[in-house]
Parts: sequence; structure tokens; C-alpha cells
Amino acid sequence: MILNFSKMHGLGNDFMVIDGVRQRVRLSAAQIRQLGDRHTGVGFDQLLLVEEPALPDTDFRYRIFNSDGGEVEQCGNGARCFARFVFDQGLTDKHAIRVETAKGIITPVLTDNGLVTVDMGQPRLLPVEIPFEADADAVIHPLTLPDGAELGVTVVSMGNPHAVQVVDDVNTAPVATHGPQIEQHARFPQRVNAGFMQVLNRQEIALRVYERGAGETLACGTGACAAVVAGIRRGLLDAAVTVHTRGGDLRIEWAGPGQPVRMTGPAVTVYQGSITL
Amino acid sequence: MILNFSKMHGLGNDFMVIDGVRQRVRLSAAQIRQLGDRHTGVGFDQLLLVEEPALPDTDFRYRIFNSDGGEVEQCGNGARCFARFVFDQGLTDKHAIRVETAKGIITPVLTDNGLVTVDMGQPRLLPVEIPFEADADAVIHPLTLPDGAELGVTVVSMGNPHAVQVVDDVNTAPVATHGPQIEQHARFPQRVNAGFMQVLNRQEIALRVYERGAGETLACGTGACAAVVAGIRRGLLDAAVTVHTRGGDLRIEWAGPGQPVRMTGPAVTVYQGSITL
Repeated sequence: MILNFSKMHGLGNDFMVIDGVRQRVRLSAAQIRQLGDRHTGVGFDQLLLVEEPALPDTDFRYRIFNSDGGEVEQCGNGARCFARFVFDQGLTDKHAIRVETAKGIITPVLTDNGLVTVDMGQPRLLPVEIPFEADADAVIHPLTLPDGAELGVTVVSMGNPHAVQVVDDVNTAPVATHGPQIEQHARFPQRVNAGFMQVLNRQEIALRVYERGAGETLACGTGACAAVVAGIRRGLLDAAVTVHTRGGDLRIEWAGPGQPVRMTGPAVTVYQGSITL
Repeated sequence: MILNFSKMHGLGNDFMVIDGVRQRVRLSAAQIRQLGDRHTGVGFDQLLLVEEPALPDTDFRYRIFNSDGGEVEQCGNGARCFARFVFDQGLTDKHAIRVETAKGIITPVLTDNGLVTVDMGQPRLLPVEIPFEADADAVIHPLTLPDGAELGVTVVSMGNPHAVQVVDDVNTAPVATHGPQIEQHARFPQRVNAGFMQVLNRQEIALRVYERGAGETLACGTGACAAVVAGIRRGLLDAAVTVHTRGGDLRIEWAGPGQPVRMTGPAVTVYQGSITL
């Protein structure tokens, strides 16, 4: 079987994207692992499989798999690449595309300047929703690390859990040492993504994220959303913020409690490929 | 410009291979670095560019570039992929292909079982040819590491320098600790590749190599040649030996001083790609 695919990336988070609408695609976990090998396969952070819609009033359905073959849920970078892919491949001529994901229906929107805006859903802010063990809700929770460091974190769930702290300088922030201590802290029973945010002004932050199970990554879409929500809750940020990550910039908007977070960023096609399976 | 390419690998050493015969290809070092990025580009250990022959009595010319954009010389895994590529792409119908490389003319041969045999040239054995600082030639040179360990190494140049030692068990050999101490030892003024060889029987070895400037790799073609030459010089091996590496098996043949080393191994096409530059 010959499988056509596109290789894409959003801020360095890279995807093998497969059209499962015009191609009949069935991949085993072992095949996904083989495709994911960066030396003997195609290589990717995630494989994104676009399929016919299964629900009414949706245009597509898509599934995301890690390179270990396991299926994953939310991924803002993947949603942007999905939208760019179906439009560029001529699978749709809509600019606002309703798509069913493992997490629910989302509607990424192609903007005039080639970027893609994704509705990332409403943030969850209560400790029990993270989950995070705390006696009461608070904007800033004290957190003591095993090495004795005393932090103040704002907890946010964007479908996945985040603990965000403000630092003076992201370049010198102790991401490598504190990141894993926060990630595995006993008060986060499902572990947590650790965000280190430097506030540059009310519309601009610099961010590094130590991702749960992955370590520091170039750019974390949900981490950018969580950081801006945390900064707005702390009264440090306005409702629309540019987030500088090591992989590039994202634009995050949040109008406040009860409102969804919107993320705008790039989606780049690197090459077209075909592989015989 | 749309550039067509193949992604290939030999024992996990992976190549972006470009047909510069039927395509007009000019790549800057910056473009090669961008193509070499595994997240935002194609990703490869080396880029292999096939060109029209410049010398009489040759079929092709090829050049190899590292992902940092620098041009490199000899590469057994690349030569196998080159031969497979020009045959499979219909650029030649010969099974023995004369090709000019930065190192000189070589003639890889496609075998009936899908493998490729490459003449790796004659090994150089004198200390001055490695280069290695020693008072006299010897099969086994004593070498004292900075940490005090006392080794016995056989030195071989396959166009690049190798220091090969015999170990009881490659799996427990101190490759990570001794590898860099050997690589940067003051007696190797141009540094050296450090080979750790376990002799299984007279026709079979297991090998790990700490590569100069790269650290331990899955499979090192010249390292396999150097190890077999060293084992034959030490009287431990016959003239044809199977080398087990972590990336797979190679067959190495050497008839003795004055004779070339021949290496036989796999070359695998992973996918076809096209990229807009």
C-alpha cells in the first residue's frame, strides 16, 4: 500500500499528516512506532490522521497518535496543522472548519495572514478540576518543592493540568531542576505541566514549559493558554497577549471566566511524501 | 523550486538523497542546515547529492554533507544508499557503479540479495598514517587514559582514524566513559574513533563505536572495517567476518596487507518526498 502524507510543523512541534478521506488508512500501533522513528521511518512528534466526519454538522474527524503508537487528546499545534492541511489539500474550501477530535468538537479558523486560530475551550480553574490538592481556591497557591524551594503557582486546566509561576527571567529560570519536581509533586495526583512565565508587559510574555512526561519542549500550545489565563487572573495581563516561546510566537486571547481561550499561530507544510507500507 | 528526494538509511544511518542529474540543484549551507532539522525540515544524518560524472570512466559523482552544512568525505553507509538509489531510480542499469567521491573513485556493487558491497579502500596501519604518536609500529599499543585505565589498542586508518580494543562484553564495555577519553587522547593529534570489539568466534564480532565528534552511534561502517582489520592483525579473526552492531549486521572482508577492505550491508528506501525551496 502506498500512503501519501504531508510533513508539517507548528512552532517546531512536528506532524506526519495523513489524508484518510481519499486514502483507505489502517495503521497498527507497531506501524505508527515504525513510522515515528526519525532514522528508519518518517519521524514526528505526533501522527495526525484526518477522516470523514462521523457526527452531523461536522466537516471532519481527526485522531492524533504519539510516536509510541498511543492515541492522545488535545493538541493546539496539531489542530492548526489539521486546518491548514485540509484547506491546502483541497479537502474543504471553508475557512472555519468544524472537526470532531477525541476531546470534542473544535472549529479552527484560517486567518487572512496564513495563521490559524483555534478555540482551546474554557479553562478550568478550581483545584479539584486540575486536579490539585488544596484547602481552598486561590489565584496563587504556595507550593514547597522537595529541594525546599517555595513557589507560588496558579493552577489551570486546559484539558490537561498546568501549574504556572512568574519568574524574573525565563532564560535563567530553573526549568531543568524545578520542572520535574513540580511535574511530579504529590499535590498533583495526575502530575502537571510546569510553566515558567516572564511578564514583559501587559500584552507580552516569554514562556518556557516543562511538559508532563516529555520534559522541556520548544513550544507548548496549552501551556501558552494556561500561562495567559494565569497572568490575567493575577492581574498582570490584558485580554490579548503575545507569547514568545523558543519555537516561535503564539497569540492568546481570553475574555475571562466562562469564555473560551483562543490561540492563533502558524502551521507550516515542510514537504509532501509517499511511503510504501 | 520543487526538489524531489528519497529518504534512505543504512543500519539506521539516515540520508536525504537528491538526484542532481535530472534536477538542477544548488544548496547553500544554510539550506542544508534547514533541511537537516528533524522538526522543521526533512531531518537526516547526512545529505547525499548525486551528480553527473566529471571524470572519464565514471558513472556518477556524489557529495555528502552533514546536517551542519559541512561537506564530509568517506561514508560506507552513504555509498550503499547511493548505489541503491541510482539503480532504483533508473539512473543506471549497472550493478557495479563507478562513482567519484570527495575521497576518490569507488565502485559499489549491488548483490543479488538486495545488499550492496563497497570497496572501502586499503587500511593504513602505521602510527604516522593514523596519526598516532608511538615510538614504533606494533599490533597492540599500550594506552593510558586520563582516569588511569590501561588499554591495549590497535590503530587503523580507513581514511579516518580508529583505535580498536578487545572487550569481554560489548554490552557492559565502558563506551560512555572511556570513549571520549580515547577520542580526545593527546596521542591522537586529530582525535580518533574508539572501537570496542567483542570476539564471538573467528567469523563473528559484536561492536560498539564511539565516533569522533558524534559520540556513540548505531552503526559505524568504517568502524566495522577497522575492527575486523584489527582483529585479523591480532590473529583473532578469519578473512571474512560478520559484524553485529546495534543498528544491524555488516559483512567485512579483508585479504590482508595491500588489499582493500570490502563491506557488504543493507540500504533501505523509506519514502519519496518533494519539498518546495
